[in-house]
Amino acid sequence: MSKTTVNQSATVKENLADTEQHYFNSYDHYGIHEEMLQDTVRTLSYRNAIIQNKDFFKDKIVLDVGCGTGILSMFAAKHGAKHVIGVDMSSIIEMAGRLVEINGYSDKITLLRGKLEDIDLPFPKVDIIISEWMGYFLLYESMLDTVLYARDKYLVEGGLIFPDKCSIHVAGLEDSHYKTEKLDYWQDVYGFDYSPFIPLVMREPIVDTVDNAAVNTSKNKIIEFDLNTVTLDDLVFSVPFKIISKRHDYINGLITWFDIEFPAPKGKKAITFSTGAHAPYTHWKQTVFYLADDLECEVGDVLEGQITSIPNKRNNRDLDITIEYEFKAEGVEKEERSKKNKNTYIMH
Amino acid sequence: MSKTTVNQSATVKENLADTEQHYFNSYDHYGIHEEMLQDTVRTLSYRNAIIQNKDFFKDKIVLDVGCGTGILSMFAAKHGAKHVIGVDMSSIIEMAGRLVEINGYSDKITLLRGKLEDIDLPFPKVDIIISEWMGYFLLYESMLDTVLYARDKYLVEGGLIFPDKCSIHVAGLEDSHYKTEKLDYWQDVYGFDYSPFIPLVMREPIVDTVDNAAVNTSKNKIIEFDLNTVTLDDLVFSVPFKIISKRHDYINGLITWFDIEFPAPKGKKAITFSTGAHAPYTHWKQTVFYLADDLECEVGDVLEGQITSIPNKRNNRDLDITIEYEFKAEGVEKEERSKKNKNTYIMH
Repeated sequence: MSKTTVNQSATVKENLADTEQHYFNSYDHYGIHEEMLQDTVRTLSYRNAIIQNKDFFKDKIVLDVGCGTGILSMFAAKHGAKHVIGVDMSSIIEMAGRLVEINGYSDKITLLRGKLEDIDLPFPKVDIIISEWMGYFLLYESMLDTVLYARDKYLVEGGLIFPDKCSIHVAGLEDSHYKTEKLDYWQDVYGFDYSPFIPLVMREPIVDTVDNAAVNTSKNKIIEFDLNTVTLDDLVFSVPFKIISKRHDYINGLITWFDIEFPAPKGKKAITFSTGAHAPYTHWKQTVFYLADDLECEVGDVLEGQITSIPNKRNNRDLDITIEYEFKAEGVEKEERSKKNKNTYIMH
Repeated sequence: MSKTTVNQSATVKENLADTEQHYFNSYDHYGIHEEMLQDTVRTLSYRNAIIQNKDFFKDKIVLDVGCGTGILSMFAAKHGAKHVIGVDMSSIIEMAGRLVEINGYSDKITLLRGKLEDIDLPFPKVDIIISEWMGYFLLYESMLDTVLYARDKYLVEGGLIFPDKCSIHVAGLEDSHYKTEKLDYWQDVYGFDYSPFIPLVMREPIVDTVDNAAVNTSKNKIIEFDLNTVTLDDLVFSVPFKIISKRHDYINGLITWFDIEFPAPKGKKAITFSTGAHAPYTHWKQTVFYLADDLECEVGDVLEGQITSIPNKRNNRDLDITIEYEFKAEGVEKEERSKKNKNTYIMH
C-alpha cells in the first residue's frame, strides 16, 4: 500500500451534474494531458516561476487547483514546498497518484479528487495557490471561478497566486482568402443552397494559429485581471478597444490572445508568457472573430468599439461575446470605407 | 409559415439520457457538418449511388436515419423519391428544415427530431433506408443499431438499404519513429518519470491518416456485414486475421479501415468507397493499433491472430478491442524474431 492516497469521495463524485461529469471525463483521454505537457511555453513558465520564487516556496503549504497529472504539484514539492495539495475532479488524479508515488513525493503531496467547493482540505489555510486554469480567450471553460473560491477561502494574508496577472489583447487581422472560402462554401453545397450556415460560421470564433504577418493594426490590451483582487463579477465585462491600421490592407476580423504573468521576488523581472501571434506556439493558439465587414484600411485608419463578454444564460460554460465597432476611414473614399456594425458570437 | 415542420417533440427530447444529450448536442457546432459535407468521397458516393439507382428511387418512400443537415434526404428527393422522412436527435435538424425549405423540398421531405426508436413515422413502411451511420473503425459511436431497428420495423420486403455492405480490413504498419517518440516521451517529463502513461498510450487506438508506403504486409478482410441480414449480435465479433510481410522491415502496429458498398441496379457495377491508406482521404482516416512488440519481419513472414470487438460494459458507446497475435518468422534468427502476444485497447 502506498502512502499516497487519492481520497476519492464517491459522494462528491455522484454530486456532479451530468454536464460536469462529461467535461471532466473528457480528461480520461491521455491526449489532452500530452498536449498540455508538451506545451513547453506553458509548462516551463510555471516551472521557471516556481524556481525563481523558491525562497518563497520553501516550507510553504501549496494548493494546486485542477492538478491534472500533478506536474505543477511535483515542481512545487521538488523546489521546496513543505506540502502540496492537488485537487482535481477528473479520474486523471489516479494517474497523478501513481506518478507522485514513483517519483518519491508521496509524503509531500496529497491528492484529492472532487470539486474544490465541496471538499475539505487537510489544512485550514495555504500559503500559495498554483493553477493552470486558463481556457481559450482566457475565460472560455476556464477554472478561474474555482481559483477565486480557493483564494477567498484558503489563501493566507500575504499568500501568492501563480500566476497572478493576466490580460486579454486585440488587434486587426487580414484573412480575406480563407474567410471568403469558408463563407462562400455554403452558397452551393452539391447544388443546394446552404447559405443559412453562413451566420452560424460567423458566430463561432475560430481557435487557430495565426501568422503574425497577417496582423495589420496596432495592438490593444482591452482588460487586465489581478488575481489577488479580481472578483467573479469582474469576469463579466464590457470594455472599449481602439486599434490603428498599419498598412493599406483589409481588416477581415479581430485576433485576440492573452498574456500571463507570475509573481516575482522583489527586484526580479517577472516570468511571463504570451499566447499572441507574435509569440511562440502554445496550445491555446489565438482566437479570431470575423467581422461582418471587410474593412479596407489605409495607414492610420482607426477601428474602435466595445467588446462584451458574458456567460451564456442557458449554459454558463459558454461565452456570449459581442463586438461593436466603428471604422473611421480617412482620406480616399473615406465615406464608402467607413463602417459601423455590431456582431455577436458564441464560444461553445 | 412553411409547410416543412420539424416535429420537435419536447417529450422525446426530454427522454434522452444525459450522455445522449451531450452526444447529440455536440452536433450543434457547425464544424462537424462542414467536415462531413466536405468529405467528397463520402458525400459523392451517396449521391452517385442514388443517381445510379434513380429508377428504383422513383416514387418511393425513403427513410434517412440520422439525417443531419438533410443532404442525403435532398439527394433522394431530387432524384425521384416520392417522399423522404429524415430523422435526427440533434438540433441540427432545425437547420435541415430551413435548408429543405429554401431549396424547395418542403412538400417532399418530412423532418422529425428525436430518437427513431421512440417516434412514430408518418408511413407504416418505407421502401428505402439511407443512412450515413459509420464511425471510426466502422463501429465506434456508429448509428448502425438504429439503422437495424429501422430495417426490422419499417423496411418493406424487397426494400433497399444505402449502403448495404461494409467490411473491416487489417494490414501491418511500419511506424518505428513516431511510435518510439510517442512512447519514449513519457520516460522523462521535465525530469519526472511519467512511464505509467505508456500503457495508456498503447491502449488507445490512433485515428490518423497513414502514408500507404508504410503499409508493409498483405491486406486481410476480417469481417463483412450485409446490412440486409446482419443482426446486433453480429456486431460483437471475434475473428481471425492473417497477413504476410512484403519486405524486410518492422511491423510496429496494425492499420485498420473499412470499405463501403451500395446496392446497384442489375448488371451495373456497385458504387463503393474505401477508407484505407491506399484510397483518397476521408474524414474517417485510418485506425492504428500499436503492437506491444516491434516485429522484425522478412518477406513472407506470417502474422496471424484474432481480433475481438465488444462494446464496453460501463459505457456501451466505447469499444473494447483485443488483438491476439502470433508472429511466425522464418529464416534468419527465426526464434528471436517470432513473438506471441495479446494486447487490449479501448476506443473511447
